Amino acid sequence: MADQIFDVAIIGAGPAGLSAALTARVRNKNVALFEHMDFSPKLQKAHAINNYPGLPATPGKDLMKQFVDHALAAGPTLIKEKVTNVFAGDTFTLLTPNNTYEAKTVVLAIGVSNSAMLNGEKDLVGKGVCYCATCDGMLYRDKPVAVIAYTEEGEHDADFLGEICPVVYFIPQYKTEYQPKHPTIQVLKARPQAVLGTDEVTGLTTDAGELKVDGIFILRQSDPAETLLPELAMDGPFVKVNRDQATNVPGVYAAGDCTGKPWQIARAIGEGLTAVLNAIGYIDSKK
Amino acid sequence: MADQIFDVAIIGAGPAGLSAALTARVRNKNVALFEHMDFSPKLQKAHAINNYPGLPATPGKDLMKQFVDHALAAGPTLIKEKVTNVFAGDTFTLLTPNNTYEAKTVVLAIGVSNSAMLNGEKDLVGKGVCYCATCDGMLYRDKPVAVIAYTEEGEHDADFLGEICPVVYFIPQYKTEYQPKHPTIQVLKARPQAVLGTDEVTGLTTDAGELKVDGIFILRQSDPAETLLPELAMDGPFVKVNRDQATNVPGVYAAGDCTGKPWQIARAIGEGLTAVLNAIGYIDSKK
Repeated sequence: MADQIFDVAIIGAGPAGLSAALTARVRNKNVALFEHMDFSPKLQKAHAINNYPGLPATPGKDLMKQFVDHALAAGPTLIKEKVTNVFAGDTFTLLTPNNTYEAKTVVLAIGVSNSAMLNGEKDLVGKGVCYCATCDGMLYRDKPVAVIAYTEEGEHDADFLGEICPVVYFIPQYKTEYQPKHPTIQVLKARPQAVLGTDEVTGLTTDAGELKVDGIFILRQSDPAETLLPELAMDGPFVKVNRDQATNVPGVYAAGDCTGKPWQIARAIGEGLTAVLNAIGYIDSKK
Repeated sequence: MADQIFDVAIIGAGPAGLSAALTARVRNKNVALFEHMDFSPKLQKAHAINNYPGLPATPGKDLMKQFVDHALAAGPTLIKEKVTNVFAGDTFTLLTPNNTYEAKTVVLAIGVSNSAMLNGEKDLVGKGVCYCATCDGMLYRDKPVAVIAYTEEGEHDADFLGEICPVVYFIPQYKTEYQPKHPTIQVLKARPQAVLGTDEVTGLTTDAGELKVDGIFILRQSDPAETLLPELAMDGPFVKVNRDQATNVPGVYAAGDCTGKPWQIARAIGEGLTAVLNAIGYIDSKK
């Protein structure tokens, strides 16, 4: 699919990503906007936002609709796929489960994960810890796996893994009436605690006991940023940025909740704009 | 007048100051909002703002009215006096020509100065005279324009305008080795003298001759803010702040155009919010 090179790839279409997309389009840039969920479900559930200047006492759902309508009318290419990896090179290569895209710069607007990384998780990413069954499922064919799901997306992944794995422990971290599609899938009520293994995953500890598995699929509303781009410098759980919203990776910028507190719409909107204008400046500096 | 101590004194009521005031009131703080001008005359004269998310293609005057109405409805104490000095002590003392005020924290949202205006400039703001290519550039698509730059930032604006305009006269007022990115851009060594036109801009006179243009983009630096608060650390012409919008003076925060580029509404709105939430955190930390 790399038949064109986007000027800017924006990952995430909450307030920060939409603001970045809007300003990039106003600046006449070619924008890929990646959104695999439904535009900030968290904000959409907010009863009313009182401190976004100009739009008083607006329900989250309405505010988000205004942001989405405004940004999409400006003409970014909306790509409803989940970016699983970003590779830095002469340009950036972005992988989704089924496609590959190229861009000159990247703006991370991925929000915050509603759960911290598990103990041991970070060291075993790609060595048993996975974030996408479509991408990596086949590597665990005929092996026992666990699916830790923070969103309904995990149910689709469990159903798929249930076809190819002898045992799938499905461990939902949200309220669900999920009915597994295969007898290989066992639903467990448990809190995951730690990923076990040194060179590769050997198991998972939970408050309901230890599971022997070779693969652990973790489905969060947003993945921790360093799983996308391993060389990204973090500041605790947040992407480390300077006042220009630049990360340590040249050409990669970050904005909004993924860069830290306060988690507020106005801040995300402002950071999205600043990030993308500096991304455009980066492109110009390379000409 | 120091009969009460405000939690937060906000100096300036453009987008950054209004956003700070709104969020401080939502957090139930006692707010003094100082505005000696008429709420960002510069923004009010903008033809249309296209990249403030949620409010598409809004004339500057209307957008500013929405910001003002929203923030003032939240109940800050609006003080229409010019703050001339701020003294740090156990609390902050703010002087205006006729009064003295006390506050626990200060948010500087003083914007950038337009002091040295060209002849004719003031009357044609919004009618051909612009201060931001990202904001207004598209209005001059396919028209001849001039960029009068007092800082390197003007070079980025010229490069952008060079993409969409048939002729861009770039007139730097500083030493530069600027290499235009487009053949449409002509670098002129000249001093601008006057903006021509009655109802709209028709040209620009300089000491090197007269230019026929429809748009004139003027990029200036801000006045030093240390005239208000001499101990304030600056970063060139801008107030030096960290990611929390904190200055070097404990309890003093800054937001918006006075902290540097990009000079954009969304950024100012976000910084105002971040500044005031950190100011509130500072008050709490002293309890």
